Amino acid sequence: MEPRPAAPRPRLCDSLGADQTPSASTLNAARAEARPAGRRAPAVAAVLPAGGSGERMGVPTPKQFCPVLERPLISYTLQALERVCWIKDIVVAVTGENMEAMKCIIQKYQHQRISLVEAGVTRHRSIFNGLKALAEDQPDSKLSKPEVVIIHDAVRPFVEEDVLLKVVTAAKEYGAAGAIRPLVSTVISPSADGCLDHSLERARHRASEMPQAFLFDVIYEAYQQCSDYDLEFGTECLQLALKYGHIKAKLVEGSPDLWKVTYKRDLYAAESIIKERISQHICLVMDTKDENHVGHRLEEVLKDALNHVKVTSRLPCHTGRDLDQIMSEQCYSYVCVNVMTSDFEEIRKLVDMLEESNLSILYPVVVISVYFLDYKSVPFDQKMENLMQIREYAKEVKKRNILLCGLLIYYPQVFYPPQDPSCLT
Amino acid sequence: MEPRPAAPRPRLCDSLGADQTPSASTLNAARAEARPAGRRAPAVAAVLPAGGSGERMGVPTPKQFCPVLERPLISYTLQALERVCWIKDIVVAVTGENMEAMKCIIQKYQHQRISLVEAGVTRHRSIFNGLKALAEDQPDSKLSKPEVVIIHDAVRPFVEEDVLLKVVTAAKEYGAAGAIRPLVSTVISPSADGCLDHSLERARHRASEMPQAFLFDVIYEAYQQCSDYDLEFGTECLQLALKYGHIKAKLVEGSPDLWKVTYKRDLYAAESIIKERISQHICLVMDTKDENHVGHRLEEVLKDALNHVKVTSRLPCHTGRDLDQIMSEQCYSYVCVNVMTSDFEEIRKLVDMLEESNLSILYPVVVISVYFLDYKSVPFDQKMENLMQIREYAKEVKKRNILLCGLLIYYPQVFYPPQDPSCLT
Repeated sequence: MEPRPAAPRPRLCDSLGADQTPSASTLNAARAEARPAGRRAPAVAAVLPAGGSGERMGVPTPKQFCPVLERPLISYTLQALERVCWIKDIVVAVTGENMEAMKCIIQKYQHQRISLVEAGVTRHRSIFNGLKALAEDQPDSKLSKPEVVIIHDAVRPFVEEDVLLKVVTAAKEYGAAGAIRPLVSTVISPSADGCLDHSLERARHRASEMPQAFLFDVIYEAYQQCSDYDLEFGTECLQLALKYGHIKAKLVEGSPDLWKVTYKRDLYAAESIIKERISQHICLVMDTKDENHVGHRLEEVLKDALNHVKVTSRLPCHTGRDLDQIMSEQCYSYVCVNVMTSDFEEIRKLVDMLEESNLSILYPVVVISVYFLDYKSVPFDQKMENLMQIREYAKEVKKRNILLCGLLIYYPQVFYPPQDPSCLT
Repeated sequence: MEPRPAAPRPRLCDSLGADQTPSASTLNAARAEARPAGRRAPAVAAVLPAGGSGERMGVPTPKQFCPVLERPLISYTLQALERVCWIKDIVVAVTGENMEAMKCIIQKYQHQRISLVEAGVTRHRSIFNGLKALAEDQPDSKLSKPEVVIIHDAVRPFVEEDVLLKVVTAAKEYGAAGAIRPLVSTVISPSADGCLDHSLERARHRASEMPQAFLFDVIYEAYQQCSDYDLEFGTECLQLALKYGHIKAKLVEGSPDLWKVTYKRDLYAAESIIKERISQHICLVMDTKDENHVGHRLEEVLKDALNHVKVTSRLPCHTGRDLDQIMSEQCYSYVCVNVMTSDFEEIRKLVDMLEESNLSILYPVVVISVYFLDYKSVPFDQKMENLMQIREYAKEVKKRNILLCGLLIYYPQVFYPPQDPSCLT
């Protein structure tokens, strides 16, 4: 199984503050074998070159700014880095023309510990600019020089704390470290006339991926010694550490989700991965305890049809505690079953709670408000008026990334389950 | 822009028959520069090793059999090859345990010109088995030896005729040819202790992709001379042609969509690409010419909301000619607007025509039947009965891969467009 990245956890670490160094418990638990306990955890910063034009993607927007579920790809990468409490500063290099857009992204998605620097015309120049901003000899910099610097790509949004920790730990020990993956295709060397010169043995080579980490002094000095040719045509930071610092980087096996969003198909894949993650849990808010009620049939249908999804059932908002618990579980899909009333009170309370939780800042939250109609006992037009009102309300809350929809289930004699319950996810 | 693969064209070439050699017009137009006009087009076959276990995907089903829109991935690849009329035979190597499953796939999706052989324990052995089946010296083989053989992967479903033609043409001239792509990541060589030994210059290397093509005798003789080591540990057919046939393969630049479905994310990407392709065209079947009618407002709403999608409006089935035209356009999304009647006649006729066209064998066809309700003039229960009936009918046609759904639009005073018209695609 492709290792499933951790569920989205927006701003898990904010309360720890920006000047937090890696917590002893986090770091030491994972690196118990790698280094003796009690050694000071290094100060860590990250540099993210994001000046690329995305020409391979073939779209006018550079790929790091392409929307995935309406949020720019780079915001997912920043989220992945900033939720790692022990990364003190994240320096992003963007081109002048994208500087304002980047500031808006940081503000809109409430990113923290981010500093912006101007990108260079090549990837290496952008990284160098990021390192300069971190170096102590910059008089106007608010940043301080870290012991270890992570270099990551803006277009690898699924990086996990685990691999970041591994490269940082290895960098501390070896001076440099980088994630690698097995090659998917054989690599060949063409001759000048466009024919095969030779092919490389796949087992003896690896793809160099990101993240990489370096002792700051090692990589900064390497960049300072770099030739213009390196800065223009090179791509591999590990190679610079080797060439100028004589440091043989430690190679760390990464997981498949470190892959780089390069083509349009990668955006599709990223979107599907994120959708899958935020659809793993449906919370049913049920306003009756009567187990014979049709609302409970809906719960059974959902559980049967979506057997890979966790379905939890909760009492409505006015009971308080139950929903607080749900909010802490980062659930993004709600089905509110209204059998006792046909008003909006419950939905409004739920939406208010969702807004307060800031849950919908990073991902869309789906709320389906279900009503039942047996038109012989309740006038149809009264029910319909409700749904008309909910539509107006839905327009309003959509601005806050909450996708609300009303569903009127008609059951003249028997209960008809919705034809395709997967539409509820 | 990532080149958009051609729209799905199921069995475009079936009528040309299995013994069709490349048509002079197709081949010569594209290869006018590559070879002198008038030379005989070569007999071409393809070998598809499909014996892999898919361990990188991390799912129990080998990746070539993983479903994409409920159809196994390998069926898309077979479809891509068989719609190229000038590929005479397609030999697929599958393991004994998947042989029956493969036969079912061929039957269910009506694949043609396919022969099955037993896969070997490695990729090279599977290819060798495929080549043996094509070689004339196999007494019980119904296949005949081609002049050129294409080797492709079962897990590269988006191969286009264009690149197949390029590798075949180059193979005819050079003896061997293969598609290549720029490297996405830098390739490095690790030392024995898991550190960086050196990194390869990205500009001087390429990823070797598929398809590849060979003069049959070149590759068959190479395989006959192969060592066991080659057959066990090698991956690169071009390398065998070089080592044993002293043939320097011509390298042909391929498009990004040649990529190999390797990880779960690639399945997501493949599904999104296919969905996007079959959603490029919506056919509105409108049973009124009255342009002031609410049905025409729906057309406007759809055109506004889905401005990247072609929306064509047609008269209902009983007029005949209009829909015949739509069938020939391979449209997979239909919205039937029923304003004059509320019965099922039109929908049944449309579904019958879709079934006759075999359109839904390869891709799901979506049909949304729209009714309008002003409950003051038409009794609600009568409309609702209709939708109940349509649901039963929908269950029946779903077995034939036609996804039918009824939509009742309520408009008490003014016309409310559906809240999210994208749900209609």
